[in-house]
Amino acid sequence: MSTEDLVSAVAREFGTPAVVVDLDVVERNVARIQKMCDEVGVANRPHVKTHKSPVLARLQVEAGARGITCQKLGEAEVMAEAGLDDILISYNILGEHKLGRLGRLLAGTRVTVAADNPVVVEGLPRAAEIAGRALPVVVEVDTGRKRAGVATVAEALALARDIAARPGLAFAGFMLYPPEDAIAETQVFLDAAMRGVREAGLEPAIVSSGGTPNLANLGRISGATEHRPGTYVFNDRMMLACGMARLEDCALTVYATVVSRAEPERGILDAGSKTLTADTGGLDGYGLVLEHPRARIHKFSEEHGFLDLSACNDRPLVGEVVRVVPNHVCVVVNMVDRLVAVRGGRIVGEIDVAARGRLG
Amino acid sequence: MSTEDLVSAVAREFGTPAVVVDLDVVERNVARIQKMCDEVGVANRPHVKTHKSPVLARLQVEAGARGITCQKLGEAEVMAEAGLDDILISYNILGEHKLGRLGRLLAGTRVTVAADNPVVVEGLPRAAEIAGRALPVVVEVDTGRKRAGVATVAEALALARDIAARPGLAFAGFMLYPPEDAIAETQVFLDAAMRGVREAGLEPAIVSSGGTPNLANLGRISGATEHRPGTYVFNDRMMLACGMARLEDCALTVYATVVSRAEPERGILDAGSKTLTADTGGLDGYGLVLEHPRARIHKFSEEHGFLDLSACNDRPLVGEVVRVVPNHVCVVVNMVDRLVAVRGGRIVGEIDVAARGRLG
Repeated sequence: MSTEDLVSAVAREFGTPAVVVDLDVVERNVARIQKMCDEVGVANRPHVKTHKSPVLARLQVEAGARGITCQKLGEAEVMAEAGLDDILISYNILGEHKLGRLGRLLAGTRVTVAADNPVVVEGLPRAAEIAGRALPVVVEVDTGRKRAGVATVAEALALARDIAARPGLAFAGFMLYPPEDAIAETQVFLDAAMRGVREAGLEPAIVSSGGTPNLANLGRISGATEHRPGTYVFNDRMMLACGMARLEDCALTVYATVVSRAEPERGILDAGSKTLTADTGGLDGYGLVLEHPRARIHKFSEEHGFLDLSACNDRPLVGEVVRVVPNHVCVVVNMVDRLVAVRGGRIVGEIDVAARGRLG
Repeated sequence: MSTEDLVSAVAREFGTPAVVVDLDVVERNVARIQKMCDEVGVANRPHVKTHKSPVLARLQVEAGARGITCQKLGEAEVMAEAGLDDILISYNILGEHKLGRLGRLLAGTRVTVAADNPVVVEGLPRAAEIAGRALPVVVEVDTGRKRAGVATVAEALALARDIAARPGLAFAGFMLYPPEDAIAETQVFLDAAMRGVREAGLEPAIVSSGGTPNLANLGRISGATEHRPGTYVFNDRMMLACGMARLEDCALTVYATVVSRAEPERGILDAGSKTLTADTGGLDGYGLVLEHPRARIHKFSEEHGFLDLSACNDRPLVGEVVRVVPNHVCVVVNMVDRLVAVRGGRIVGEIDVAARGRLG
């Protein structure tokens, strides 16, 4: 089936906007990155926040991934229920509601959690108690990104000792998400932290790095045992921009219809901020229109994507269905309950975004 | 129950982030705006895209609204199934998939649609044919906002005549969404369009204006028969900024927990772009933290809201649950499957965001 025929078939069967995933491309992406990890001897622990689908997580594990990463308990619950095991929740979990859920999850699944402060560490034994088994905890360290993570080696060591001393908790190592251009600084931090915990008699079994752009640094962090790439499964305009993907590696596109052409230089897509999201990912415009790459999606209302067509020679007519590579694929997947799956240029079914809508 | 006790109760029962609606405030908002409309003799046709809930749409209709407005077919289908009638879909509907659905919807429900171009008008008779009844169509006109809508009176008249001439379609009037500061220009456009269609023997039964900020112009557009406010049901930081709401009119807040305080001037909430969304609504920062109004939510990752606490004297500790008034409430509601409902300071249940997740 030609691309044009496929686009027509999706529009006819599902209407637009539709979020469409090419499984051939997904499988190539999964295999390629797994091979990269295997070659440098770093385990792959893909972050499922990108797809939120047990079907795709399973595909990653079967290709060789060591377990998975989740960004929240709700994702981990859905994955565990679907039989996925060895889950790192890369997030500070706290509060009675979540600790209860974590305990019930831990009872039946291998789970590791992250912590970057003593309040979180203080609460975690409650989950271990409910589960009746030890909870491994990695210390999240920040080597320059200014997000979560302790900012100093001293704090990292204090937290490691705190974890090791708590009943029901086991110090499991370190988790980091280094800035792509601060690998040297990251190494200095990590070396000191590793030395420190070893001097305290603790062994960091896990040293987990993250991010698809950081695949460029794979193997360059001495001591790293695993990596948590997320976006690589689908890729997006951000990955094109940072050079981690080529256009043919982009597995997910949003099919949208041109619904209005009120003036010669303006057009409107039926995909707005409730589909493509207002997340620019730091780029200009909100997506790449494959059929009209010089069309700029410059603004959204909730169900409208506003096109500036002034740079286009060949301008779309009302009714034309186009494919958009979103800036940030992880937040787009989160907007929909199902993805349309294609393979060999044909529609093969739908994939549930099963872990969507789980707050916390 | 004190606010502090309510916040604890929600966190304990639902965890965070939780999207919480105060029904007392909702009812006050609904009654106040209905009274405004009644007083100037303009019908209220609230836009349900804000809440996507048949329960709340019913509440608006029972307070006196004339039908409802939907931004897409999927919303209209959910509302019609729940028994709501007299629905304006303020959107260009086209393509085989949607025209079939529109036909089936129209068979059992009073529906009016909008059109701003001949391609859309050409397709609509198909829906009327399926339904076996006439489809009323309003011409969408743009009086300066540069979104959907024909840009000239001549096009508006041509489209009105086109609609009137098509079997199964009935010209129903005009739909507009005037810029708040262009009411005079809007009136000039509208007067010419009204005169033009009347000269062609057509009567614009509906002249529909829109927007909560445009409630400030209610009654100032001569000929307007109805208004489509959406946000007023909940209000948000944008409505605070434009003066259409006071803090006590904000019915919806996102309850979030401070999960990290890596440095004295930094904090992290467990509500990121997958909860509060990256939609700034043109404001600085991404929400108002009621307990710490000088804390600035300056950046998101997917599950983290990054707080700049440098201007706060009283800084939140890890574990504190805070309430955030989002910048743009319509897109936040769209992120969740259920809202937590409170009344009289107590949790009274949950409200399904039943029309969420309907693409197109």
